[in-house]
Amino acid sequence: MASRPAATPEAEQQFYAEIERNHLAALWNVSARLMPREPTPRIQPYLWRWKTLRTLCLRSGELTPIEKAERRVLGLINPGLKDKYAATETLWAAVQLILPGENAPAHRHSAAAIRFIIEGSGAYTTVEGDKCIMDRGDMVLTPAGQWHDHGNESREPMIWMDGLDLPIVRDLDAVFVEHSDVKVQKVSKVSGGSERRFDQAGLVPAWEPPAAPASPLLNYKWAKTEAALRRLAQVDASPFDDVALEYVNPTTGGPVLPTLACWIQLVRPGVHTRAHRQTSSSVYHVFEGCGYSVINGRRFNWERGDFFVVPPWAWHEHASAVGEAILFSVHDTPVLRPLGLYREEAYGEAGGHQPVTGVFEG
Amino acid sequence: MASRPAATPEAEQQFYAEIERNHLAALWNVSARLMPREPTPRIQPYLWRWKTLRTLCLRSGELTPIEKAERRVLGLINPGLKDKYAATETLWAAVQLILPGENAPAHRHSAAAIRFIIEGSGAYTTVEGDKCIMDRGDMVLTPAGQWHDHGNESREPMIWMDGLDLPIVRDLDAVFVEHSDVKVQKVSKVSGGSERRFDQAGLVPAWEPPAAPASPLLNYKWAKTEAALRRLAQVDASPFDDVALEYVNPTTGGPVLPTLACWIQLVRPGVHTRAHRQTSSSVYHVFEGCGYSVINGRRFNWERGDFFVVPPWAWHEHASAVGEAILFSVHDTPVLRPLGLYREEAYGEAGGHQPVTGVFEG
Amino acid sequence: MASRPAATPEAEQQFYAEIERNHLAALWNVSARLMPREPTPRIQPYLWRWKTLRTLCLRSGELTPIEKAERRVLGLINPGLKDKYAATETLWAAVQLILPGENAPAHRHSAAAIRFIIEGSGAYTTVEGDKCIMDRGDMVLTPAGQWHDHGNESREPMIWMDGLDLPIVRDLDAVFVEHSDVKVQKVSKVSGGSERRFDQAGLVPAWEPPAAPASPLLNYKWAKTEAALRRLAQVDASPFDDVALEYVNPTTGGPVLPTLACWIQLVRPGVHTRAHRQTSSSVYHVFEGCGYSVINGRRFNWERGDFFVVPPWAWHEHASAVGEAILFSVHDTPVLRPLGLYREEAYGEAGGHQPVTGVFEG
Amino acid sequence: MASRPAATPEAEQQFYAEIERNHLAALWNVSARLMPREPTPRIQPYLWRWKTLRTLCLRSGELTPIEKAERRVLGLINPGLKDKYAATETLWAAVQLILPGENAPAHRHSAAAIRFIIEGSGAYTTVEGDKCIMDRGDMVLTPAGQWHDHGNESREPMIWMDGLDLPIVRDLDAVFVEHSDVKVQKVSKVSGGSERRFDQAGLVPAWEPPAAPASPLLNYKWAKTEAALRRLAQVDASPFDDVALEYVNPTTGGPVLPTLACWIQLVRPGVHTRAHRQTSSSVYHVFEGCGYSVINGRRFNWERGDFFVVPPWAWHEHASAVGEAILFSVHDTPVLRPLGLYREEAYGEAGGHQPVTGVFEG
Repeated sequence: MASRPAATPEAEQQFYAEIERNHLAALWNVSARLMPREPTPRIQPYLWRWKTLRTLCLRSGELTPIEKAERRVLGLINPGLKDKYAATETLWAAVQLILPGENAPAHRHSAAAIRFIIEGSGAYTTVEGDKCIMDRGDMVLTPAGQWHDHGNESREPMIWMDGLDLPIVRDLDAVFVEHSDVKVQKVSKVSGGSERRFDQAGLVPAWEPPAAPASPLLNYKWAKTEAALRRLAQVDASPFDDVALEYVNPTTGGPVLPTLACWIQLVRPGVHTRAHRQTSSSVYHVFEGCGYSVINGRRFNWERGDFFVVPPWAWHEHASAVGEAILFSVHDTPVLRPLGLYREEAYGEAGGHQPVTGVFEG
Repeated sequence: MASRPAATPEAEQQFYAEIERNHLAALWNVSARLMPREPTPRIQPYLWRWKTLRTLCLRSGELTPIEKAERRVLGLINPGLKDKYAATETLWAAVQLILPGENAPAHRHSAAAIRFIIEGSGAYTTVEGDKCIMDRGDMVLTPAGQWHDHGNESREPMIWMDGLDLPIVRDLDAVFVEHSDVKVQKVSKVSGGSERRFDQAGLVPAWEPPAAPASPLLNYKWAKTEAALRRLAQVDASPFDDVALEYVNPTTGGPVLPTLACWIQLVRPGVHTRAHRQTSSSVYHVFEGCGYSVINGRRFNWERGDFFVVPPWAWHEHASAVGEAILFSVHDTPVLRPLGLYREEAYGEAGGHQPVTGVFEG
Repeated sequence: MASRPAATPEAEQQFYAEIERNHLAALWNVSARLMPREPTPRIQPYLWRWKTLRTLCLRSGELTPIEKAERRVLGLINPGLKDKYAATETLWAAVQLILPGENAPAHRHSAAAIRFIIEGSGAYTTVEGDKCIMDRGDMVLTPAGQWHDHGNESREPMIWMDGLDLPIVRDLDAVFVEHSDVKVQKVSKVSGGSERRFDQAGLVPAWEPPAAPASPLLNYKWAKTEAALRRLAQVDASPFDDVALEYVNPTTGGPVLPTLACWIQLVRPGVHTRAHRQTSSSVYHVFEGCGYSVINGRRFNWERGDFFVVPPWAWHEHASAVGEAILFSVHDTPVLRPLGLYREEAYGEAGGHQPVTGVFEG
Repeated sequence: MASRPAATPEAEQQFYAEIERNHLAALWNVSARLMPREPTPRIQPYLWRWKTLRTLCLRSGELTPIEKAERRVLGLINPGLKDKYAATETLWAAVQLILPGENAPAHRHSAAAIRFIIEGSGAYTTVEGDKCIMDRGDMVLTPAGQWHDHGNESREPMIWMDGLDLPIVRDLDAVFVEHSDVKVQKVSKVSGGSERRFDQAGLVPAWEPPAAPASPLLNYKWAKTEAALRRLAQVDASPFDDVALEYVNPTTGGPVLPTLACWIQLVRPGVHTRAHRQTSSSVYHVFEGCGYSVINGRRFNWERGDFFVVPPWAWHEHASAVGEAILFSVHDTPVLRPLGLYREEAYGEAGGHQPVTGVFEG
């Protein structure tokens, strides 16, 4: 491979200009960037304070009529993803406010959503005619392609968390949205039909088709979820997540939605979990209590109502303060697993605890 | 193919003698028997009266010490299967008695079992160290290959139904049995561990491996089962089975065991279902109430505690009397489905009701 | 439970008479038989000589017109299963003769079949209009529920092996048979359509629905099968089966039929495999060469054309004579696996070889 | 909700400034963009001329030593994705040149790749020790996580197409890359081991574990692929794609890689297919012949060696010129399907043909 007489700086310059003009790129110039040894996420660990979120949320209620907004939603935008409007590369997370008497009109879309109720009681989401009553701590699904509208029949403002797969559905150019002619869906005689069909572990209607891709149980009520957490606490816990339950589709045992997994997690008083990391990304909401998480060596103190993001492949561990804490979270693991891209690792040193090199100030 | 000079009666006789001697058979002589147009089951629809069963069951307690019997079990033997000791070609069904203070020692086997509690309260089955307390109406699993022992710590006799896949496991020559050196398994600190892990619909421990072949939920308590039946009754029912729930594996949504499906079924007051038939076979136990089933045109009147068998491809329909009735049943559908042999058909005439041509007298 | 005054011999006798009269059985009297520690198959290892089979097969052609027989089939009846007409508890194996110009009329049934051509060339099986030409060594499928008729357009008698799941389908009372009004199906313009669609590894029509339960490739031609065996021999072999290929469904990679698995197996010159056993049962046909198998310590010498049975849980090992041998075999593994009943074990002693304690004399 | 006195322009301005400062976004201001009624892909239909590609490719060989480049690869960059370095949102497509005597050193990564050979013969890719010889028309896999190195032992330059899932793996922050200490992997005694194991349709080694996620067949040789195309042409074709085969994993019947599907497609002389669209995106390479595709109403004339992109949800139809044409293509359908995001639609009007409103000039 003796001499390469042609490789003068001018020749190279001309060559690179030509390949760019022809919509090509030389891999060797970009491979360090495209093919790093380990993931180098743009997204940052970040925490949003409930105090701020709640104030701005209520303020949006004063400023923006529902007729204009359709959904009065403030999305959490990761500082690393400003252009993308997303909490992580795959997840949209937001707080939604609906005031007494308001209605968010019926639509449906190829993106799938979960709602976790933070404040208030007595609103509803109607999913394909099934009216789901929403109270604090409930987790309500609006699966892809199903008509849904929301309304607040109580006398108080209602705030919930939205979790959607919208960023990945957009990346994949697969967003379809339809608006209904009917603002408020007609509801079935008996509300909570999905719960009446599916709300006992290990029992399903004998004539149900097996294995629907999205969960046919639409409303996971808090009272039952909390009881399940307390029961599990009596017998088992994970060193990395303490007492953690995954919400699942009762007809498959798999994630509630093909693109989203949801967890509820009790960190018992004084527990400090071991660190680990996954290729999945997550958004956490502090439902009860206070404590902190250490993410890639930085300490994130949190209290009731706060939200925080754990990026892919970021070491993370959780600790409650004096009392217990309860965390709700959304994960994109169902996107990664079928593609063979899910990977996890435990932090091996120092008993599983990272050295803390800083504190997040927000 | 003009003449066949060789086909004299003598030649034929000699030929058939020779093929038999050589362990062969001419299909054309047996094909009518081996390949009927439709299933021609040996097993018969049959009903066992609780009055008789209970009396004989208690009598066996007087006659047979548990030390001799190990399990004091009376199997329901289908009149068509005397040589096979089975309720249907695939299912073993029985009543088991355990007296106060008795213990049925630990063993494990490749056949899988379910227990449905008929009478008494406060006995237990320990499955791989998990002590399951058994009360009337509970359904307890002892999956294939798992150590299990039973004991009665109450002051009353305890009677339950056993349902096993033993006949098909024997037909397949796959029975393995092991006896433990330890008569009574050591139990975990907290009893009912499987319930504490899995007894909330749509919530499973976040670290559980997905999709165990046998259900990791071992005890389906009656109070919850009944509540689920009543909830389902508010919203839905099947024309063939009225308000029917299948017990399922919460990690798959599939049958509780790879070989057995279990149902609980409320026939509401005055309901008379439409007839249908399947290639699966079933054993029913009348948990509450009275009524009748019409099986292949014959009426089987039943009341609390009775057992009856529905053969494969037999038309059947159920009716409650004035009050409601609750039926528990075991089915071999999980055996048929993966083999592509499950088939079902609705009775199309006379509004779905068979003409009744006789009454079973027992 | 001090004394049991009632347990006199008379009382016991009366009790057992009464339970029998009531169609019950005391498990403790039959459990040794129903629940052995290990499988105790009725079926026996057995070998049928080709010389005898062929002679009787041709003799049946002289004696029995096809119009009478419909299928001129001699079934191999295991000496342990005389009442059942089967080679193993799950498998029917047979030789079928079709003479020049004969036709076996179209029918379809819920039992599934494979054909492996032993002698002759130029017959056909038409499966749902697709005419499959049959030559020595070909393996042709007639899946459950598909219309099929056979014909011999050559000038020579044609003999093939039939393998069916009939015994298990009968045990499960799921046999359905239909006879066509049309004796010979109309065939598509191009014969061998399934091969033209599916006969290249790793390439399927882009519009095919994925994962049909029975293989859509209907004819596995010998020339290709043999070439594949020789290619595999260059790189790999199993200590238990030497160079063995499983015929699979190209749309799933699973067995060719939901109930039957088929293998072709080259035992290279001088190879003597290690013994192992499985809960599955098998019927082997010696396609080429000679050698022997040791089954549960007895030596079965075989040569071209012979058939032999390996019962469930029977130790078995194979050896070729001076030259190579090729074995075709049918197995019921697909029945056992989904039920969780498949189990296998390697023979650990003496380098994997059983002591030989006898020779099968037939 | 009568008056909203607070909603002055100043108040609104202040509010929006505050939410931005707090890393939030008001959905109602971005929902039109985030949630369009139908996909609005950034990527454009585009075509790269082989004449240009080949010239620049060979020029890169003169300018860039392999020691510097490691892989001498020119990526096709969609004009709509300049910042992303990708052919579609999910797919990387490129041409790779390797000169006689050169070696691309061993590495492995979580992104998966296919290679389709365009020019030359006698190069190799060694995948986990299995040396795959590469000739024109061959399709070679380097699945995720498997070590691979390339080399050219011929006397001619070798050019192939690379297809990778890199853009989606990067979007998901799941790129891991490892470089080997060993530049050239040690190879097994027999090259082409994967072909020797798997290159006969419907036959797999009997001891292979079923259902590997990536195909264990690594080299799909052109001679066999072409023969399969011609055989399929005798019996079937699709109105939308004419004679199209999907390369599949022989152990599952599914796509060759968990993230990529590959097709080979014969457009017979004079055939003009009907238009349809999918949510998947594709890169096509013209292997033989010439013709054109109409994509979203614009005509793209193509000839041997050209590459073109079909964006998600773009109507497209293909036509050969006088002679036949053969297209190879890569698709991201396996990414979309498990997420429930795959959707397709046939063009209903004008006999399935779009009106042509322009011609691509490049």
